[in-house]
Amino acid sequence: MLKFEIMAKSTETRARAGCLTTSRGLIQTPVFMPVGTRGTVKSMTPEELTAAGAQIILGNTYHLYLRPGCDILQRFNGLHRFMNWAGPILTDSGGFQVFSLSKLRKITEEGVSFQSHIDGSRHLLTPEKSIGIQRCIGSDIMMCLDQCIAYPSSREEALAALEITTRWAERCYETWRQTCPDTQSLFGIVQGGMFEDLRQRSTDALRDIEFSGYAIGGISVGEPKELMYGVAESTLPGLPDEKPKYIMGVGTPQDLIELVAMGADMFDCVMPTRNARNGQLFTKSGAINISNSRFAHDESPVDSGCTCYTCRNYSRAYLRHLYMVRELLAYRLNTIHNIHFYNTLMKQIRESILQNNFESFRKLFYADMEKD
Amino acid sequence: MLKFEIMAKSTETRARAGCLTTSRGLIQTPVFMPVGTRGTVKSMTPEELTAAGAQIILGNTYHLYLRPGCDILQRFNGLHRFMNWAGPILTDSGGFQVFSLSKLRKITEEGVSFQSHIDGSRHLLTPEKSIGIQRCIGSDIMMCLDQCIAYPSSREEALAALEITTRWAERCYETWRQTCPDTQSLFGIVQGGMFEDLRQRSTDALRDIEFSGYAIGGISVGEPKELMYGVAESTLPGLPDEKPKYIMGVGTPQDLIELVAMGADMFDCVMPTRNARNGQLFTKSGAINISNSRFAHDESPVDSGCTCYTCRNYSRAYLRHLYMVRELLAYRLNTIHNIHFYNTLMKQIRESILQNNFESFRKLFYADMEKD
Repeated sequence: MLKFEIMAKSTETRARAGCLTTSRGLIQTPVFMPVGTRGTVKSMTPEELTAAGAQIILGNTYHLYLRPGCDILQRFNGLHRFMNWAGPILTDSGGFQVFSLSKLRKITEEGVSFQSHIDGSRHLLTPEKSIGIQRCIGSDIMMCLDQCIAYPSSREEALAALEITTRWAERCYETWRQTCPDTQSLFGIVQGGMFEDLRQRSTDALRDIEFSGYAIGGISVGEPKELMYGVAESTLPGLPDEKPKYIMGVGTPQDLIELVAMGADMFDCVMPTRNARNGQLFTKSGAINISNSRFAHDESPVDSGCTCYTCRNYSRAYLRHLYMVRELLAYRLNTIHNIHFYNTLMKQIRESILQNNFESFRKLFYADMEKD
Repeated sequence: MLKFEIMAKSTETRARAGCLTTSRGLIQTPVFMPVGTRGTVKSMTPEELTAAGAQIILGNTYHLYLRPGCDILQRFNGLHRFMNWAGPILTDSGGFQVFSLSKLRKITEEGVSFQSHIDGSRHLLTPEKSIGIQRCIGSDIMMCLDQCIAYPSSREEALAALEITTRWAERCYETWRQTCPDTQSLFGIVQGGMFEDLRQRSTDALRDIEFSGYAIGGISVGEPKELMYGVAESTLPGLPDEKPKYIMGVGTPQDLIELVAMGADMFDCVMPTRNARNGQLFTKSGAINISNSRFAHDESPVDSGCTCYTCRNYSRAYLRHLYMVRELLAYRLNTIHNIHFYNTLMKQIRESILQNNFESFRKLFYADMEKD
């Protein structure tokens, strides 16, 4: 089972450095989790993920349930052996993708019925079923089925969604407690839209259930950044401090620093991987688009001083060439760099918290950004 | 400069095992050269190519001339540093792609004018220019500009093409001799269509020029397999035995064995790489298509006993899943396997020649094929 230990707290902010112990290894927090939607972090091998500093990856329950499906995953005793990743895996509940990808969704107290975005086949996802699928996947950390709402949503919609999310959380917890409390952990997800009092209400309800960790869902759904920060800042302190606090689906390097400052421990986002495939590469002085013609003859690496495989071996000119002709290697080399960049940033953040100079690091980060 | 040494000859066939010494390392022949068209063997890093047994790779002059272009390659002192491949590189002359890809080709004594297949820009490729581009690329082995003809072609067309190929070969040789005879080697290409006497005529003309090696071009262009074997079998003995003999653009594992038996030393083909991206994987008992539903639950590796990275770490079921959802990792893992398969086959062929049991190996190869 999951053990969370806080190693250091920043004295000037709410930032904290911790250690999350799973049966598949330690996770040093704050941590960024690369997204491996369909049993692979796009273009990367497990060895490359490890070399790029990944400690834990995320799998998507909705996608894995549809393809390859539970029978195949069960044959392999879960996703770890299937994809050859020995480290920890966190799975979302499938809820977010049902709401964002599938067709003809219908929500009832029982669960959410939907049609697959692939072949139109009909499915019913209930809290019990979501936990069942996550058991097949064998993830180290499972998430409760929640109802995500769009931005903007009315107070009534947000309230209804948080209430059903609370009742589903109780059912998820009960299913988990009866089936796999010793081998897999379960996190609850706070909802409540952009309404601070509803976020508080959701938090209070979930705190009554003894989850192994708590996540904030339903942010980074199109709202202004200040609103997102506002919701996070008001919600994070209400979550139990002795448990890991996870911000779902966020964000930019700047977001990670700001949210760590507010007390967040875990993050996942498609940004480093998806943007890599679109030619956007992160550097200390901001993101660059490798397709820019100013890189055509550039013999320097993407980010000077970066120790990733890509920067140690290839120039911006070569990466630009590969990207312009849409070579498969482009996506991979770009992804390696971005994952390494995110993980290195988290490592630096963590070290600065341990040395109690997080605020200096944060200032330095912004100063570097402004150099370019 | 290139040194070719024959280490052993089969007593029952014309097969031979040799050693080709380049300034960038030894090449043990018979050798298969993976195709790295645009400065990358699709989806693979140089380290993976080496791990999969690649000793030398091929670059395409036509593609590299158009993108990234000579000015960028010159900035990097050639393709090796640009793509970070330290081993030998062979480049074709650009002729084949001009004939197969470009638009509005026009052949004159001077060269071939064409429009780029990318942007319609107009270019003139002459023997002198082809050598010039290959100097920018910095390939260890350059090829003469030749005129490829389609199958079927008339005797008149074949004769005209071989005659211009001969005159262009003389001009390529002269340009090479005056510019880079100490740093790069040059091979001639025999043409002549499917006409044995024309192949003989082309061979005789090229033998008069002291090339470092000789290739057979213009086969595997759509003719029946027996015809391809016939042309190779009648042409190969006429090429100087003390020089490497290279069959361009061929072929299947079976083709490689048969052509080695006829005396060929070098091969290149897109088959292992392109077919990998189409889900076709080579095994001892024949090729399989990984999309086949019979592999959906298959926990075994692609080819039992194969020591490639893919077979050591992943199941057919996982590879099928990746391929069915078109994940980038699919192309890469499949390519690693196929390249390893081809290189291992060549290594086994070579070892059997060195031990003078090539014929037994050949029989075993076909017996394994029939098992499935």
